[in-house]
Amino acid sequence: MTSGLAIAPTAEMIENRTFGEIEIGDSASIVHRVTARDIELFAIVSGDVNPAHLDRAYAAGDMFHHVIAHGMLGAALISAVLGTRLPGPGAIYLAQDLRFLAPVSIGDAITATVTVTEKHAPKGDITLDCRCVNQTGVAVITGTARVRAPTEKVLRPRVRLPEVTLSGHVL
Amino acid sequence: MTSGLAIAPTAEMIENRTFGEIEIGDSASIVHRVTARDIELFAIVSGDVNPAHLDRAYAAGDMFHHVIAHGMLGAALISAVLGTRLPGPGAIYLAQDLRFLAPVSIGDAITATVTVTEKHAPKGDITLDCRCVNQTGVAVITGTARVRAPTEKVLRPRVRLPEVTLSGHVL
Repeated sequence: MTSGLAIAPTAEMIENRTFGEIEIGDSASIVHRVTARDIELFAIVSGDVNPAHLDRAYAAGDMFHHVIAHGMLGAALISAVLGTRLPGPGAIYLAQDLRFLAPVSIGDAITATVTVTEKHAPKGDITLDCRCVNQTGVAVITGTARVRAPTEKVLRPRVRLPEVTLSGHVL
Repeated sequence: MTSGLAIAPTAEMIENRTFGEIEIGDSASIVHRVTARDIELFAIVSGDVNPAHLDRAYAAGDMFHHVIAHGMLGAALISAVLGTRLPGPGAIYLAQDLRFLAPVSIGDAITATVTVTEKHAPKGDITLDCRCVNQTGVAVITGTARVRAPTEKVLRPRVRLPEVTLSGHVL
């Protein structure tokens, strides 16, 4: 139970699923609890400073009565499942449609799930049903993705991302 | 040309376009040059650590031969135009479809443009053609958005976002 710098941690691996390995009905999910910092970071990286996401005073008077996450932040979770789990590395993202059905609030635990519904040889394209559901079971985003699945196996150490510090907070 | 703390800068304002003000053919754009830091931040906020975006050694051997931005990072620019320019605050994002046509690389200057193609009373929904084009004129993302336009005018100071610091870089 002790560790030190000399003991390298086992790198978590990222592994793909090739077109040949993928079967209709295969599914993968990630769960993410949305924080105020996520919304601030998404605003910074996208430039989407709509006050519905960043201005508590404004949002108190809008239809949702509190700040909500960017719709595309939920969509980014779908992208994360496709890019890291199913199919994972080597996939080419061809198309995505999204229906934003309900708002996502700070503290919501969003489960993003993709499920393979079609396989199309010879190009190796697959179609996936996509769904983000909150902690009460409400579907907040549904949609369909079209991805060209990888043909070669990939197994790589997961890149360790840097830590982020914000100079202050608006939320 | 001098300034001091006593002289408050004029806050940049964010203004929406109501359903009544919007006409078919109206258009708005933003231009954003994609940086390595953008990709790192998008990976952090989305959890999408696909090595195509973060691992230069892996990406050198993939089909694009260099790291590329997440497709959803381009899509987030479309969301930013919708959320801040047309229609802007008070809009409700209903649906978005996206076709990812070409990769986005570090240094690419992406122009995201939305153009109103349909107005649907009585709910106040509008349909917008969406397009992200790079600095060489290549369309990297095209799609269609469906948004419920605001009925009330909003004019608010633009929220000033905090500064971001990363503890290191993977790119």
